[in-house]
Amino acid sequence: MSHVLDKLFATIVARRGADPKISYTAKLLAEGVERCAKKFGEEAVETVIAASADKKAEVVTESADVLYHLMVLWAACGVEPDQVWQTLASREGRSGLEEKASRK
Amino acid sequence: MSHVLDKLFATIVARRGADPKISYTAKLLAEGVERCAKKFGEEAVETVIAASADKKAEVVTESADVLYHLMVLWAACGVEPDQVWQTLASREGRSGLEEKASRK
Amino acid sequence: MSHVLDKLFATIVARRGADPKISYTAKLLAEGVERCAKKFGEEAVETVIAASADKKAEVVTESADVLYHLMVLWAACGVEPDQVWQTLASREGRSGLEEKASRK
Amino acid sequence: MSHVLDKLFATIVARRGADPKISYTAKLLAEGVERCAKKFGEEAVETVIAASADKKAEVVTESADVLYHLMVLWAACGVEPDQVWQTLASREGRSGLEEKASRK
Repeated sequence: MSHVLDKLFATIVARRGADPKISYTAKLLAEGVERCAKKFGEEAVETVIAASADKKAEVVTESADVLYHLMVLWAACGVEPDQVWQTLASREGRSGLEEKASRK
Repeated sequence: MSHVLDKLFATIVARRGADPKISYTAKLLAEGVERCAKKFGEEAVETVIAASADKKAEVVTESADVLYHLMVLWAACGVEPDQVWQTLASREGRSGLEEKASRK
Repeated sequence: MSHVLDKLFATIVARRGADPKISYTAKLLAEGVERCAKKFGEEAVETVIAASADKKAEVVTESADVLYHLMVLWAACGVEPDQVWQTLASREGRSGLEEKASRK
Repeated sequence: MSHVLDKLFATIVARRGADPKISYTAKLLAEGVERCAKKFGEEAVETVIAASADKKAEVVTESADVLYHLMVLWAACGVEPDQVWQTLASREGRSGLEEKASRK
């Protein structure tokens, strides 16, 4: 069974050509990469605020918003989730500090 | 088979008590929520820049960094991935604009 | 003659008690520090995008938005502009790298 | 007498050609617009965290960092402070909500 994020990405891609008046996803994608980046950045800011203000329930909902808008940004940029999953998988198994060093 | 993100979260939690000199994850968690929020925010900024500058390969690697640091932030805040997956799943099936409206 | 930023801050403070239906500044301040931090963060993201996308005219207008929302955040937090100007003045005269080191 | 921000910008511009090993400002400018945008974005995130965590003294020092890095970004993009001051001055006198509306 596929993961909710992979299903979400499939939904995002399927909505690309939908009517922007009906689909928020279609509207974002029609507005272009910079608009999608802006929305992702805004949700990241809200997640940072929720965490810093120690509001755990809001961290959950804002994180969901971050993930949705990150995947819209991937669709806008032509990035496939598998590219990101493989990047994460290739880092697995290394210790954190090694892994951090290897990214630089 | 579990998703790479669920495996990554399990690794993050397992490293919580490790030596901060050896594990970057242990170091971040020992430094507290605000530090984890800061690192997540920084990686989000880098993703925004990569997308705006039209650098697709960097969007992939920065997105991997965003996801890793978001999950460290979840661990720091006591959030479980399933809470976020369920939030996303509960929104599925609604049209984007309805869904957006329902979040407000 | 006072600087435009000092005049702007005086205007922000003067609007604190105004009708939130008429004054955007009063509305933001009535909504609290986290809301003001969110708006500042959003404008910072837009400035980052404008710069990364090489749109100079937008860097100017987004920077104006950043400064306005930063000063609203100061008003929300009880910070006076002079505290920030003095912090900047106290760093003057040091070389950049010394100065950076001294902040850590 | 000129404002500390105008003096700071003059210092930033004067350091543009300095040795990046000695001057942090020269180093940032030599690394380009995206690097300057990244640093500005990071400091903005730290200001958001300081405000959300209700740490007033940190809001002051992080705001100073934001302003310094914003001005470095202006120098990197070829923006002059007067362009931003004039944008802010031209908005003065309008009510906040009118002003907000006029920006859209």
